[in-house]
Amino acid sequence: MQALPPRIGALPSGPRDAITDVAGVTVGHATLSDGAVQTGVTVVRPHAGDAYLNRVPAGVAVINGFGKSVGLVQVEELGVLETPIALTNTFSVPAVAAAQIRQCVAANPECGRGLPTVNPLVFECNDGYLNDIQRMVLGEADYQAACAAASEWVAQGAVGAGRGMSCFGLKGGIGTASRRVEGQGFTVGALVLANFGLLPNLLLAGRPVGRELAARLAAQEADAAPEKGSIIVLIATDAPLDARQLRRLAVRAGVGIGRTGSVFGHGSGDIALAFSTAYTVPLSPDEPMPRVAMLHDARLDGFFQAAADSVEQAIVHALWHAEPVTGRDGHARAALRDLLPHS
Amino acid sequence: MQALPPRIGALPSGPRDAITDVAGVTVGHATLSDGAVQTGVTVVRPHAGDAYLNRVPAGVAVINGFGKSVGLVQVEELGVLETPIALTNTFSVPAVAAAQIRQCVAANPECGRGLPTVNPLVFECNDGYLNDIQRMVLGEADYQAACAAASEWVAQGAVGAGRGMSCFGLKGGIGTASRRVEGQGFTVGALVLANFGLLPNLLLAGRPVGRELAARLAAQEADAAPEKGSIIVLIATDAPLDARQLRRLAVRAGVGIGRTGSVFGHGSGDIALAFSTAYTVPLSPDEPMPRVAMLHDARLDGFFQAAADSVEQAIVHALWHAEPVTGRDGHARAALRDLLPHS
Amino acid sequence: MQALPPRIGALPSGPRDAITDVAGVTVGHATLSDGAVQTGVTVVRPHAGDAYLNRVPAGVAVINGFGKSVGLVQVEELGVLETPIALTNTFSVPAVAAAQIRQCVAANPECGRGLPTVNPLVFECNDGYLNDIQRMVLGEADYQAACAAASEWVAQGAVGAGRGMSCFGLKGGIGTASRRVEGQGFTVGALVLANFGLLPNLLLAGRPVGRELAARLAAQEADAAPEKGSIIVLIATDAPLDARQLRRLAVRAGVGIGRTGSVFGHGSGDIALAFSTAYTVPLSPDEPMPRVAMLHDARLDGFFQAAADSVEQAIVHALWHAEPVTGRDGHARAALRDLLPHS
Amino acid sequence: MQALPPRIGALPSGPRDAITDVAGVTVGHATLSDGAVQTGVTVVRPHAGDAYLNRVPAGVAVINGFGKSVGLVQVEELGVLETPIALTNTFSVPAVAAAQIRQCVAANPECGRGLPTVNPLVFECNDGYLNDIQRMVLGEADYQAACAAASEWVAQGAVGAGRGMSCFGLKGGIGTASRRVEGQGFTVGALVLANFGLLPNLLLAGRPVGRELAARLAAQEADAAPEKGSIIVLIATDAPLDARQLRRLAVRAGVGIGRTGSVFGHGSGDIALAFSTAYTVPLSPDEPMPRVAMLHDARLDGFFQAAADSVEQAIVHALWHAEPVTGRDGHARAALRDLLPHS
Repeated sequence: MQALPPRIGALPSGPRDAITDVAGVTVGHATLSDGAVQTGVTVVRPHAGDAYLNRVPAGVAVINGFGKSVGLVQVEELGVLETPIALTNTFSVPAVAAAQIRQCVAANPECGRGLPTVNPLVFECNDGYLNDIQRMVLGEADYQAACAAASEWVAQGAVGAGRGMSCFGLKGGIGTASRRVEGQGFTVGALVLANFGLLPNLLLAGRPVGRELAARLAAQEADAAPEKGSIIVLIATDAPLDARQLRRLAVRAGVGIGRTGSVFGHGSGDIALAFSTAYTVPLSPDEPMPRVAMLHDARLDGFFQAAADSVEQAIVHALWHAEPVTGRDGHARAALRDLLPHS
Repeated sequence: MQALPPRIGALPSGPRDAITDVAGVTVGHATLSDGAVQTGVTVVRPHAGDAYLNRVPAGVAVINGFGKSVGLVQVEELGVLETPIALTNTFSVPAVAAAQIRQCVAANPECGRGLPTVNPLVFECNDGYLNDIQRMVLGEADYQAACAAASEWVAQGAVGAGRGMSCFGLKGGIGTASRRVEGQGFTVGALVLANFGLLPNLLLAGRPVGRELAARLAAQEADAAPEKGSIIVLIATDAPLDARQLRRLAVRAGVGIGRTGSVFGHGSGDIALAFSTAYTVPLSPDEPMPRVAMLHDARLDGFFQAAADSVEQAIVHALWHAEPVTGRDGHARAALRDLLPHS
Repeated sequence: MQALPPRIGALPSGPRDAITDVAGVTVGHATLSDGAVQTGVTVVRPHAGDAYLNRVPAGVAVINGFGKSVGLVQVEELGVLETPIALTNTFSVPAVAAAQIRQCVAANPECGRGLPTVNPLVFECNDGYLNDIQRMVLGEADYQAACAAASEWVAQGAVGAGRGMSCFGLKGGIGTASRRVEGQGFTVGALVLANFGLLPNLLLAGRPVGRELAARLAAQEADAAPEKGSIIVLIATDAPLDARQLRRLAVRAGVGIGRTGSVFGHGSGDIALAFSTAYTVPLSPDEPMPRVAMLHDARLDGFFQAAADSVEQAIVHALWHAEPVTGRDGHARAALRDLLPHS
Repeated sequence: MQALPPRIGALPSGPRDAITDVAGVTVGHATLSDGAVQTGVTVVRPHAGDAYLNRVPAGVAVINGFGKSVGLVQVEELGVLETPIALTNTFSVPAVAAAQIRQCVAANPECGRGLPTVNPLVFECNDGYLNDIQRMVLGEADYQAACAAASEWVAQGAVGAGRGMSCFGLKGGIGTASRRVEGQGFTVGALVLANFGLLPNLLLAGRPVGRELAARLAAQEADAAPEKGSIIVLIATDAPLDARQLRRLAVRAGVGIGRTGSVFGHGSGDIALAFSTAYTVPLSPDEPMPRVAMLHDARLDGFFQAAADSVEQAIVHALWHAEPVTGRDGHARAALRDLLPHS
């Protein structure tokens, strides 16, 4: 077994090689693991304050819209987030969205009355192979637990929303990574919920390891199944970018996904969201708007490279750190590390 | 008081002047009215069968995306509906989406396992002026009740999702209308959840009745409030149109909305969805795909006129048929008909 | 004949009631009128400097994309203009685009070499009823003449690109208007190239004057023709808005168009572009980026009303100021003012 | 020097490994090569008839919109092509668009009069490093020559629009490839105009050959230059897909581009268009519309794989078949084959 995951690209990482290398960003998980229940919630908080009162700018790229995420319509119109970003399984989206509403109302009693309603933002993948998704067991307490657990240290693999996810027929889940933008003093971080891909197609840092693994594991049903399941990509940066530029950054998630061996399968909801922590927009129009000099678009290439590399690295990390999981009906997913030759 | 609502345009209506003039379409309401609770659910079923198994084509136009509707990402990618269309208040979207998932799973036990997950489709407006939206009282039973109540006869005004809605500072809610497409043998029907507009801007069949009404009701807070609240527009037709053409049809909802006096306010979620009942797409790729000759785009002008007129007429109907409602904290909305001069 | 055109809405206009009430904006025309040649070029300059070096932010709304305008792909990606905005007839788009390239290269000899290529931006309508569009007579000199003629005083009606345009079966062309945004000290101006609509549908400040005019002019072929021809809408403001917000402003052009009696016909290229003069983005990433506090989105409603009213007023002005024109094959368009009853 | 280019993926190619393996599709070039003039036009004809009268369905994916292509607005609205697809250099777009208009008018004298205007469709990349783009030498005759030369045999490399293009700091240009869709009896073909990428990033069938080549050629300015120049991707298939599905196919071009080492650079216009030859839509609404059973979306995965592989292979072919070219100011681009080690 290799000691370290393959490294993507030439750019240096931040100290944690995680999305939390973007200062202020924290990540929390709530994980359920009990027999046929293998699922959870993961929360990414863009800053320590109330996301409803102080909104970070954001942009979205729907690479393949076979997905049930909620909240994107308003992010695309207004270019800001209003809640922590939540990840979970497909059928738990409503429960988590309800929890976001309740959390916002609890903190802001005029929400939906004197103040505007809040826009829940929940992304999802289908963990139904390992998890009995039809039980819909996740609730408000799990979302709150994930929020409460948010910190700068990010557990990866079969945790939180990643608990039941599969990736290239192996155990997938949560992965994160970061890259420093060359010469500009900024950081780009990515966090993925990786639940996509066919094993024969897996590329690990460009190497077609999937073909050989698939041959070895030929009995696995993964070989014949269509690509489905989805990947959610969250990208953070501390550079001053506006919503239009952040959408451009989010588009580059497709490069990282494609380089691991996906062709954005028909049944895969491949969605990316990028946000900036460089400034916030106040809820109230009576507060002063931030006076910001945005980055010149001609300086974005370094960010695009950092985003593509961070996303590919985060997917590798999701596979690398995932422990094997057995769940619903005895379905099991192996861990990539257990299958790679010892080095 | 006038006996009949003003009539929009020169095209003839179908027999019910309702979206259900498109054969197969039915509408059901579940209404809650008890003190501070003034809200509900409305369901539009595109056909009598299982919408998950046999999908009608659909297109979406997000005119102003200040809204929390769920399901649009996948409709835009795949161009089909998978559930009955649900309308409700903003904070009840998760409960209704969960009800749609449970309904689909109950009817299709492999949903989310051997079969793909289902895409909930719930539209919303904020009825928080009359309804205590923070209570989040609507649940699965209400959605089921609305589905069970679906019929070709459509109650309008302060019913279903329209129970607590306000429109131009008056009582709004559900309205519907239909128009025959000139010379082509097809019908276009519209159903709106009308919860938008400022009273001074109200145009009734082109007449600026809002200015005078606003002067008379000068004490009402509606005058000064920003335009918010949203309008949802559903458009049905029996003509063979594909998803691209249906998006074009949905865009024309903006004409009908604009002609009633709206400028698509910043805080108004103005979203339109159009669907066709002329054919369905099977869930399973093993079933034969429908062999359809679509309508030529150059024949769409009659549909565009019918859509614009139906939408404007449906908004007029929502105002016309709404009874006065008093709800949360004694907030009240008057009925348009009670304010118009007797004729 | 009425002395003054109908006035739209309650907001005050700027001193010229023209797009040039937004300080720095100028408009120039080059008009060709000789028998079967009835066409021209109109140029809107966002500021007096080189648009390639100092770019104003801009957003686009394609309301109905039956149109051959060039340059929108890049405006949507980068959110800025790089040239003066040109309007002309459909078949002259290439000639005018070539003229924009040559103008930019002449002023910036490194354009396309050491510096990026320039993005021509040309909008069009089809003036083929009055003008022999197949002759393609417009050339570089006409574009340069329009640029050279740019001033704060804007000729309207059958001038420039509007020379051969028809609108509601009458003589259309160039119209402009402006509105002050209530309570915020900003101005919104609109300029339209109006070449759309069916006479029976014409609404003049809400009054259905088209029905009566169409009955009187029943012999005209306009009655039966499908809606085609297009309208281009340019919106300027001096408020600090970014590209996302400017797209939102451009969407409201649809309200103004719809209120004059259009349903965005299938064959009508209805496209709007909004730009701000509040700041510019330098071509070179080595120059400092502007440090701007954007307007809060919750303050946009006044701009949306001003945009909708300016656009509707500009269309009225295009009809009002157009003189009758006879062109190709004896085709003629009457002037609205000649047909309205004397007052 | 290797005898054969690296092969992408496991799917079989069609007999020509070219876009023309999709029956009916032909490709023609007009090439100018004289000192500082190194440029041309390439035409892809979707079928042998008049593209204006019988329109093939098409969809577009703008991956990075830093580009000056014309015609996309209408393709996105109507979902069809009206002309042969033309490729050329950035500053020659107007000349080629004018040639397309003249060609259509010559064949259809009522175009722009009794019949609608035609929508020119011209894609571009900036060949300004090798070609003196400011001379704008290409004209109508070159477009006509490319059309006349269209055949099923496709010259690749430094020909047609590819004559002056650079790719990964090497000589780029035209490349093509095809793949059979597994088990479905259909073919996907791609043609690229490749003018993008930084040498150190070049991946050849996954191998990072660029790093080593860049080290060897360290003196070349390509190393330091930002990624600019663009890639245009055309994808053809004989499967019955509608415009929505073809857009989905076009999105997968991003996978192929990304796998060669691009991150969709800021200054790179990366645009893909996919079309189907399975049916045509008549210009006239009086002709019958085709009655087609579209492919089920769940059958698209094989097409997505074939598209991604064809695009990557076509880029490899563009590099592989390009001969070295010296052009403007002595600028030169080497051929990849001359740099690879002998095998």
